[in-house]
Amino acid sequence: MIKLVLIRHGESVWNKENRFTGWTDVDLSENGLIEARKAGQILKANGYIFDIAYTSVLKRAIRTLWITLHEMDLMWIPVYKSWKLNERHYGALQGLNKAETAQKYGDEQVHKWRRYVDVRPPELSITDERYPGSEPKYKELREDEIPTTESLEDTIKRVMVEWFQEILPQIEAGNKIIISAHGNTLRALVKYLDNISSDNIVSLNIPTGVPLVYELDDNLKPIRHYYLGIDGELPEEKISKNL
Amino acid sequence: MIKLVLIRHGESVWNKENRFTGWTDVDLSENGLIEARKAGQILKANGYIFDIAYTSVLKRAIRTLWITLHEMDLMWIPVYKSWKLNERHYGALQGLNKAETAQKYGDEQVHKWRRYVDVRPPELSITDERYPGSEPKYKELREDEIPTTESLEDTIKRVMVEWFQEILPQIEAGNKIIISAHGNTLRALVKYLDNISSDNIVSLNIPTGVPLVYELDDNLKPIRHYYLGIDGELPEEKISKNL
Repeated sequence: MIKLVLIRHGESVWNKENRFTGWTDVDLSENGLIEARKAGQILKANGYIFDIAYTSVLKRAIRTLWITLHEMDLMWIPVYKSWKLNERHYGALQGLNKAETAQKYGDEQVHKWRRYVDVRPPELSITDERYPGSEPKYKELREDEIPTTESLEDTIKRVMVEWFQEILPQIEAGNKIIISAHGNTLRALVKYLDNISSDNIVSLNIPTGVPLVYELDDNLKPIRHYYLGIDGELPEEKISKNL
Repeated sequence: MIKLVLIRHGESVWNKENRFTGWTDVDLSENGLIEARKAGQILKANGYIFDIAYTSVLKRAIRTLWITLHEMDLMWIPVYKSWKLNERHYGALQGLNKAETAQKYGDEQVHKWRRYVDVRPPELSITDERYPGSEPKYKELREDEIPTTESLEDTIKRVMVEWFQEILPQIEAGNKIIISAHGNTLRALVKYLDNISSDNIVSLNIPTGVPLVYELDDNLKPIRHYYLGIDGELPEEKISKNL
């Protein structure tokens, strides 16, 4: 039986400030650091070992992974970082406070941006300083690969490219995998693994910093999934009603 | 002009305890963490940027690199870890206190082990719990690649394989490189770059946690090298008389 572990990065500075983050490269909060350490300790206490790790090129996911691997004494395993595992790009909303945005555009519009799988927030201009094309970390990307905004569907497409081209072949080769990523990136994987409809995936929330284990059969079909908490218990506030 | 940056890991717990470390996977000391942070801050203040990083599979080098990259806001760059950049394997001496070893075997013998390029310390038995072959991190190695002891010459050989096969092609492709490694691993590179004799390389000491910059010409021949200190000044106790 194969175990795949997904982990959403610990709380970031902007999660705390309730701002749209997307590709903005904000660091973990103090609380996020603690969450990452706990995740590593829980995985270690439960006897988990990994051969390969995947993460995005955003520091909140990378650092969550690094801290987890440090706690597990697995700093030596290969870590592959890909922009395809980045959080959904939130276009011109990135950096805005969520409450202020709701006041400005109305609750209904914000609801559409956040909860419709094929709706994109307003685009970033390529002259905007937030445009990813001006950052060295995206210099290898073709211009048509660099997003100026994304629907959840757009995000899912690139995540699945990473899954089928990079991650799945390593699972098939017998490697034990951990993926440290973001709310929407992990939604993409969970949607695929559990065959969840587009309508249902948008309201699925994955808690920060808690290892989510998928048990797969030999054909890589999910048998079951669960969060790893201390003694199998997850703090009440972290339990998503959807998972 | 090409700049290559070498950094020896910050002080480890065993540096402090004056024990032969070799492939023993000890963590950084508190002082080592501070050294790594400073190294990152100095590199950032001097405008350094890297495209690719190389390190060993030992946590004192990996963590020094991770902390450096965090300080430089370069956590997203690819990091390649290889056992070929590990510290020299110190055979059956690993774990022993250096002063006690000198008492047991005599100063002259210890001097030979440490200061002759082709002398190997006593071998580890493959049933010894310190034998690397029993660790998951070396499971990809062929049995004849797993050392039971090494002379400095043995270490140099494997480091140069990593240099010519992995690192040099990336420098030639125009990538800016940082290598976070160990005293003897970096000796190997310095010996090669500056064409230092075997007699002289054994007494060359590279200080922990201080970036060592090599400026190379277009044919990758060294023009000059220097340590990066705050305002170009290196603390007195860190200056090696040999470099």
